[in-house]
Amino acid sequence: MEQIVLQSPFDMHLHLRDGEILESVAKFTAQSFSGALVMPNLNPPILNVEDALAYQKRILKACGDENFNPMMSLYLTEKLDKKELQKAKEKDILFIKLYPKGATTGSENGVSEILNTKILEILEIAQELGLILSIHGESNGFVLEREAEFHAVFAELAETFPRLKIIFEHLSDRRSIAVVEKYDNLYATLTLHHISLSLEDVIGGALNPHCFCKPILKTPKDKDALLQIALSAHKKFSFGSDSAPHLQSNKENAKGAAGIFTAPILLPALATLFETHKSLENLENFISGNAQKIYGIRATDKQVKLIKKPMTIPQVIEGIVPLYAGKTLAWSFG
Amino acid sequence: MEQIVLQSPFDMHLHLRDGEILESVAKFTAQSFSGALVMPNLNPPILNVEDALAYQKRILKACGDENFNPMMSLYLTEKLDKKELQKAKEKDILFIKLYPKGATTGSENGVSEILNTKILEILEIAQELGLILSIHGESNGFVLEREAEFHAVFAELAETFPRLKIIFEHLSDRRSIAVVEKYDNLYATLTLHHISLSLEDVIGGALNPHCFCKPILKTPKDKDALLQIALSAHKKFSFGSDSAPHLQSNKENAKGAAGIFTAPILLPALATLFETHKSLENLENFISGNAQKIYGIRATDKQVKLIKKPMTIPQVIEGIVPLYAGKTLAWSFG
Repeated sequence: MEQIVLQSPFDMHLHLRDGEILESVAKFTAQSFSGALVMPNLNPPILNVEDALAYQKRILKACGDENFNPMMSLYLTEKLDKKELQKAKEKDILFIKLYPKGATTGSENGVSEILNTKILEILEIAQELGLILSIHGESNGFVLEREAEFHAVFAELAETFPRLKIIFEHLSDRRSIAVVEKYDNLYATLTLHHISLSLEDVIGGALNPHCFCKPILKTPKDKDALLQIALSAHKKFSFGSDSAPHLQSNKENAKGAAGIFTAPILLPALATLFETHKSLENLENFISGNAQKIYGIRATDKQVKLIKKPMTIPQVIEGIVPLYAGKTLAWSFG
Repeated sequence: MEQIVLQSPFDMHLHLRDGEILESVAKFTAQSFSGALVMPNLNPPILNVEDALAYQKRILKACGDENFNPMMSLYLTEKLDKKELQKAKEKDILFIKLYPKGATTGSENGVSEILNTKILEILEIAQELGLILSIHGESNGFVLEREAEFHAVFAELAETFPRLKIIFEHLSDRRSIAVVEKYDNLYATLTLHHISLSLEDVIGGALNPHCFCKPILKTPKDKDALLQIALSAHKKFSFGSDSAPHLQSNKENAKGAAGIFTAPILLPALATLFETHKSLENLENFISGNAQKIYGIRATDKQVKLIKKPMTIPQVIEGIVPLYAGKTLAWSFG
């Protein structure tokens, strides 16, 4: 049977939440990936090193695999200071995450004026320490224009801190590609859902809450452009799933939570997508090689075998409706 | 207390469904309007005069007001013929409704090739009889471009049948305004939701299934342009609510039905909207005068009194979540 072996895949943008949900979903990522960059937008958020390390312990316990590497991040607020950032560096917490206030799930504590003096001071320190700045780049404007309206902030930050690595997370708008390409210190992550779905999948037929996420899926042209970037394993882009486990009851019943759960299906779905577009040879760079270079992280000896055998995705996994529920992929775990 | 009296309002685009739902919602329209153009997309659809007249009887019984005028329409399929159209005319059924196949709720029986010979023959007869052609104008393309992609069909029909009155129903895209203005025999309806909401209200925050409809709400710029048309009571546009009663259970729980229920709140909401924009003097033309001229219908002596007294809209009415549920309007029924 045809098979591929993926070396040390990384998921550079992941939501694991906490408590029961963490307990039930962490294993899916640990099975598929060497490591993952874990987002700090819990309720309450991860604001300091102590909380990040405690969360990391809970994650390791939940996934039951001590070789899995949960890369931790701190939620950027004006209260972060030099001492805490130095401590973060010492403890190998290398990421700080900037959420504009109100942009997405758990962003209530985010930054309202991004370029204010206090934040700029923190970023100056982060640059000196060699930390990496991860950004949910959206304005508070009309939902389809939010990412484009944020380009100026990326430009300003990239120019002000030329030695700070900045990540344009879950890039969703084709107009953003040129922004990433323009600045040497600007990189991006791409999700599975933004390279394989469009707004058509959310509102084109019956309303589909399970394809609703932020940044909102854009037009088919955006999807096509992002897919080409992924298929070519463009060196400034790495894979970050933005997998977000919301219970079925919080996605339906008019609660309307934003986020798509992809963790259990990512590698078979990516293999199916890349093979369909005759780009399977670029998959390993997209999910591993690029991340190693961009983030300066090391491959582990983890190998994930996929086999060319149909896999039908369950309607519900751990109380959560996954992406592609009920559909059949060409590849499955070996 | 400040009050206004509206003379003979008309709702020129209405869904009443059938059975229990009809029984529970017909009264709301009959209370507010002299008459309404009732859509034929039942399941099964209203394909002939006999069914239309029987449906009209059920509507009159359900609303319990014999002075209310349910203007009936026939669902256009290739099976309509000259005899049936003549019979329709004799029975005062003056509207035929064209649904492109698959465009919206109950359009499974719609027309797949709109400009085919059989349909053109039917429209030729309709023109000779002085019937009015009502069109759900959307292509099968990307959801945000469907209406614009349909402009060519409107142009072709308007030019081919210069004496046939054609209605561009629930116009939703500001690019469509120029198309309506270009052809003497082309008119349009505007809904309350398309002149007061945008896609932001559906997907901008948490996902809101109760603002999900087809044609999908467009950008804030589209909403603003359509609102200006309504506020000025542009002579080629009349009010058509497109009120669509879907039970709460079919809007939530991932069933995702498209349609917004507005019938119980239309006149107070329109008065509030028009007053906010200092255009209350144009409301009567928008909801009555324009329809009389465009459709050649006569005003009745029905008067609806509204008073300047706050009205809070219930969360649920007859098992259906109405537009603006829980919000308070400045005007209420007197």
